Amino acid sequence: MIRVGILGASGLAGGELIRLVLQHPDLELTFLGGSSSAGRRPAELHPGLRLDLGLTIETLPDSLADRCDVVFLATPAPVSAELAAELADQVPCVIDLSGAFRIRTPDLHDRWYPKVRRAEGLADRFVYGVPELIGDQLAGAALISLPGCFATAITIGLAPLVLSLGLNLRTVVVDGKTGSSGGGLELRTANLHPLRNGAIAPYSPAGHRHGAEVKDFLDRSKPGGVESLSMSAYGVSHVRGLMASSYVFTDDEVDARSLQRAYLRFYKEHPFVRVRRHNETLIPVPDPQAVLGSNYCDVTALHDEEGGRIVVLAALDNMVKGAAGQALQALNIRFGLPVETGLTMQPVMPA
Amino acid sequence: MIRVGILGASGLAGGELIRLVLQHPDLELTFLGGSSSAGRRPAELHPGLRLDLGLTIETLPDSLADRCDVVFLATPAPVSAELAAELADQVPCVIDLSGAFRIRTPDLHDRWYPKVRRAEGLADRFVYGVPELIGDQLAGAALISLPGCFATAITIGLAPLVLSLGLNLRTVVVDGKTGSSGGGLELRTANLHPLRNGAIAPYSPAGHRHGAEVKDFLDRSKPGGVESLSMSAYGVSHVRGLMASSYVFTDDEVDARSLQRAYLRFYKEHPFVRVRRHNETLIPVPDPQAVLGSNYCDVTALHDEEGGRIVVLAALDNMVKGAAGQALQALNIRFGLPVETGLTMQPVMPA
Amino acid sequence: MIRVGILGASGLAGGELIRLVLQHPDLELTFLGGSSSAGRRPAELHPGLRLDLGLTIETLPDSLADRCDVVFLATPAPVSAELAAELADQVPCVIDLSGAFRIRTPDLHDRWYPKVRRAEGLADRFVYGVPELIGDQLAGAALISLPGCFATAITIGLAPLVLSLGLNLRTVVVDGKTGSSGGGLELRTANLHPLRNGAIAPYSPAGHRHGAEVKDFLDRSKPGGVESLSMSAYGVSHVRGLMASSYVFTDDEVDARSLQRAYLRFYKEHPFVRVRRHNETLIPVPDPQAVLGSNYCDVTALHDEEGGRIVVLAALDNMVKGAAGQALQALNIRFGLPVETGLTMQPVMPA
Amino acid sequence: MIRVGILGASGLAGGELIRLVLQHPDLELTFLGGSSSAGRRPAELHPGLRLDLGLTIETLPDSLADRCDVVFLATPAPVSAELAAELADQVPCVIDLSGAFRIRTPDLHDRWYPKVRRAEGLADRFVYGVPELIGDQLAGAALISLPGCFATAITIGLAPLVLSLGLNLRTVVVDGKTGSSGGGLELRTANLHPLRNGAIAPYSPAGHRHGAEVKDFLDRSKPGGVESLSMSAYGVSHVRGLMASSYVFTDDEVDARSLQRAYLRFYKEHPFVRVRRHNETLIPVPDPQAVLGSNYCDVTALHDEEGGRIVVLAALDNMVKGAAGQALQALNIRFGLPVETGLTMQPVMPA
Repeated sequence: MIRVGILGASGLAGGELIRLVLQHPDLELTFLGGSSSAGRRPAELHPGLRLDLGLTIETLPDSLADRCDVVFLATPAPVSAELAAELADQVPCVIDLSGAFRIRTPDLHDRWYPKVRRAEGLADRFVYGVPELIGDQLAGAALISLPGCFATAITIGLAPLVLSLGLNLRTVVVDGKTGSSGGGLELRTANLHPLRNGAIAPYSPAGHRHGAEVKDFLDRSKPGGVESLSMSAYGVSHVRGLMASSYVFTDDEVDARSLQRAYLRFYKEHPFVRVRRHNETLIPVPDPQAVLGSNYCDVTALHDEEGGRIVVLAALDNMVKGAAGQALQALNIRFGLPVETGLTMQPVMPA
Repeated sequence: MIRVGILGASGLAGGELIRLVLQHPDLELTFLGGSSSAGRRPAELHPGLRLDLGLTIETLPDSLADRCDVVFLATPAPVSAELAAELADQVPCVIDLSGAFRIRTPDLHDRWYPKVRRAEGLADRFVYGVPELIGDQLAGAALISLPGCFATAITIGLAPLVLSLGLNLRTVVVDGKTGSSGGGLELRTANLHPLRNGAIAPYSPAGHRHGAEVKDFLDRSKPGGVESLSMSAYGVSHVRGLMASSYVFTDDEVDARSLQRAYLRFYKEHPFVRVRRHNETLIPVPDPQAVLGSNYCDVTALHDEEGGRIVVLAALDNMVKGAAGQALQALNIRFGLPVETGLTMQPVMPA
Repeated sequence: MIRVGILGASGLAGGELIRLVLQHPDLELTFLGGSSSAGRRPAELHPGLRLDLGLTIETLPDSLADRCDVVFLATPAPVSAELAAELADQVPCVIDLSGAFRIRTPDLHDRWYPKVRRAEGLADRFVYGVPELIGDQLAGAALISLPGCFATAITIGLAPLVLSLGLNLRTVVVDGKTGSSGGGLELRTANLHPLRNGAIAPYSPAGHRHGAEVKDFLDRSKPGGVESLSMSAYGVSHVRGLMASSYVFTDDEVDARSLQRAYLRFYKEHPFVRVRRHNETLIPVPDPQAVLGSNYCDVTALHDEEGGRIVVLAALDNMVKGAAGQALQALNIRFGLPVETGLTMQPVMPA
Repeated sequence: MIRVGILGASGLAGGELIRLVLQHPDLELTFLGGSSSAGRRPAELHPGLRLDLGLTIETLPDSLADRCDVVFLATPAPVSAELAAELADQVPCVIDLSGAFRIRTPDLHDRWYPKVRRAEGLADRFVYGVPELIGDQLAGAALISLPGCFATAITIGLAPLVLSLGLNLRTVVVDGKTGSSGGGLELRTANLHPLRNGAIAPYSPAGHRHGAEVKDFLDRSKPGGVESLSMSAYGVSHVRGLMASSYVFTDDEVDARSLQRAYLRFYKEHPFVRVRRHNETLIPVPDPQAVLGSNYCDVTALHDEEGGRIVVLAALDNMVKGAAGQALQALNIRFGLPVETGLTMQPVMPA
């Protein structure tokens, strides 16, 4: 059994990690860390969790080395930056779910995460990326930084265009729509149910750091592949799941059939990415409700001939494929387990 | 009192017209038309309506001339096309809420409304447009075609850029998000609550006729003002209200302050358009929940300097400003009443 | 014009009062009071309100007498208790929307409102009740206490049984279901959208003070009419509107037809109470969505022969008939205006 | 591997069975039956299901004996009644999820299921009940009838009072609240999202057959234990999950502590029933959102001293513990597998 610690166990991502670790056959939960929640049982903070977990949330001890083979950081980015520095050489593997180490380019990082100070050289030691795209780097990695929820969907959506079809993307306009769980449990009036239900809340209307993160990654992966990428993000009236719509303008030639073929081929060996046809089922897909609770990312690329563009839709559960599920997926690769281990749950739909 | 008839009284738009006509001090409801619903009382079909309305839904009589000064067509586009031909010279004023006469250019109409045959020359007799933009044409008009719900929001959002600032819009990417009432009460599995709640349904991912309608209108209003406009539309998990996000790329110079000033000036005399600042209240606006039940359209234009674009957000209640409310607004102008008559209801929020 | 002041203008009830006062032809808003929100414009706190209100929230001045003919207290019960004492002899009419003066019996009050100290003798000076039942007491009243949202629905539902049919109600079991606006905008984790959406939250499973309030009122109105009344309350997954289900056991004889007749007769002259038949429209009624945004209370009494009981359902909009609308209804009666003045808005449905 | 067939594979319960069978380590899906959906792949009808299932929905062949060890009937009650007669002696085990064989007493059955004709003697051959209460009868059973979703929750809630504490329940008033998935995918206007969202729909206000089912079972289990049980049911504004509130009046003595102890003891060996304390976590429980997607039933019994009653709350996921999950639970017992096999998924919360 691989011994797992979770720091930030009281938040939404922490709770989701606990849920998924409990369902994983090769993992053993050995440490739950929190500061203000220290001393509380997980089920007090996560109302759905089994009651008899036998663990209490603790403050960070001097060393986690003897208790954990892997530690997840489900902490806010500034805290992750500090904890990573502390734990980097202490435990065999640290997997950070925050934004602290996602953007590699220092200037860009400072712009989007002005409050997150990273220890000198630490960021370069992190392996970053969607597991489907960087799988071989994850094997044995000591420090892993997971993409943001939107960034995961956008990257899965754009990668075949850039990396397989080799298109030059002149302009990419990303419109992201997410449920309220994307904002965590922050006590702000705008997050209260009466003001959040029924909303279409343009919370990041003119720029979002997940867009910058994707651009940074694609620029490294294929310099010049994406000329310009802008993003806006909205909160809509459900809780779990997001959709990233990427409207892509390119001067290169492309047609519907080759698009579909390229996506199918690109993700052929990747069970968590489902290349779908828009009309293949009762409801138009991708739709996050069709992946709820699962580690799937559903993706479709449409050729809008009249609009002169490619429309790429990618939907995922922001708590699973966008956070805790992808974290276990990375862990599976890191530790040499079959990638689907503990992640075979089918979508809970309708919900 | 102006005598009002409503055809298509059993649908959602018909019901909303009844609601608003009842609240209007100068209107008298004298005829409710329907085919399959003939013989039923309005409150049977519209559960909220006052019970003692004293009217029954009827089939169309030989003539409405002696019963109505104005007739609203809240019927599907193909039916509106037929009814308009029949009523055009019979009643003083026909106001069509469907898409039958929105697109002027014949080719474009045939492409987006292939099943809607318009009588020769009839389309040219219709006055079309958002009342704020074409007010003087409405005075005394005999035939009025109202813009689609999304088209209203998009047009209100783009008009100051094109018509006031005189920008040349190279590329406009529209992302529309609407509640389930936008789809009416069609009995389809995808519209059932279990499959529609929690959804982000990409029902028109690569092209939407309201986009074509806006382009057609702006091309007539200022030829060459918009080079390219593409649109995608999504159903999200609430019932009433929509947001149109227009991502605008232009080679012309613009800055945040001149944008805000231009919008404020453009809509200064128009009480139903509220130019808002993104952060001026508890929740980010525009948000359709902040206009629910009212005839307001909230609009904001943001300069996304890094993204090299203008982000225009416009939110409205698709049943009111996007349909029945705008219809009464047009009627008010048509009959020389103050434009706010019967339309001063404040947003019902939170709801 | 009657000059209106609202204390507690920053809360949900305060905002709703502003909305309805703006729609009332005979009222003029002259004072908005708040403590922590002093200095802010109402539209900052109530995102839907018209932007050009021309009023700013203020702290309480030495005297309101020269600025207001009537003052609404939309403040928490402990604050209302203090303010009422201060304002009682200062302004012609004080209308309290809180629970401070609802329960007359001192013991009962102390039990359910242990933190609300009422000035000696003050409670007895308040007129309390659903306007439909105590209308004549409201005319000219100086101090008015409005029933709670649930209490309004329960009382409207039970009154015909007790006061008209003269039944002896042996056991009444009340199950109340309300949307999230019932809890105001209190910053508690359980009120955040992710934890409140999709919930059936048993927040008062074994006793609720609105039940005590109804019992207290009915005991005064007809001693012995109700032997026992117990209540439970739940938050369900919408924002606005509530349903009170009263399961009534009586040893007296009753049948379905006489029930319906009694309710119709009892509320014949009362336009805001709609006696409905369960199956008379597209959806089963009463349902709060069919009264949303209006001052209606929909009510039905069913004879469950097999269950040996009467089932009384009453639905209303907790913000309107359960709070601000009923407040204006009381004001209308108090000042001799037609009871429907400013309250004729039809339900906004679907929403 | 146990070979599983599912009849009624196109409905909600059928889809949920497929989902859970796929997650069960000892089951192999070998037959999917449907009539109008024959020829379609499961993922066409169930948008979330994995796409590569390799099975197509078929019409019923002459014999299922060589393809299935167990057949689930997820068909409407009248169809189940027919199919059960046909399959009873053909396959080793038939598990019916419909209401066809739930009520044993013939008169009562005919009253609540007037259109369901059961073959002579067939009903008596069925084992019926909540697995926690009738576990030993399930071992090796050939015909199994599963309780209704509400009936499961009510029975789990009342059983300790009747069967363990031995109380005589004079009057039980049940108020059931369920999400829209409880109504399946029936194409009725009242089920469309615009009319169902935000609703509190009293669809069975004065009597519900699940109440009759519970009474019938408890009368057999302990004659005289429940004198009177009446039920009302409501649809509320979410999709998945239900709450059964039972308000219990008894002349026997009881106190809070003995209640809690009795429930804990009664369900000690039953991992799917969680006896909770109302305030033990962030949100009041039981709440169906805290069991979403899992096979848990959360239950609490409160002593309402002032109300002179016991309040029993039981929440479950109507698709899992109320249908497909309980079906697999029964199968596990029937085939001698550990009861939790394939059912260890933790609640997906928040969702």
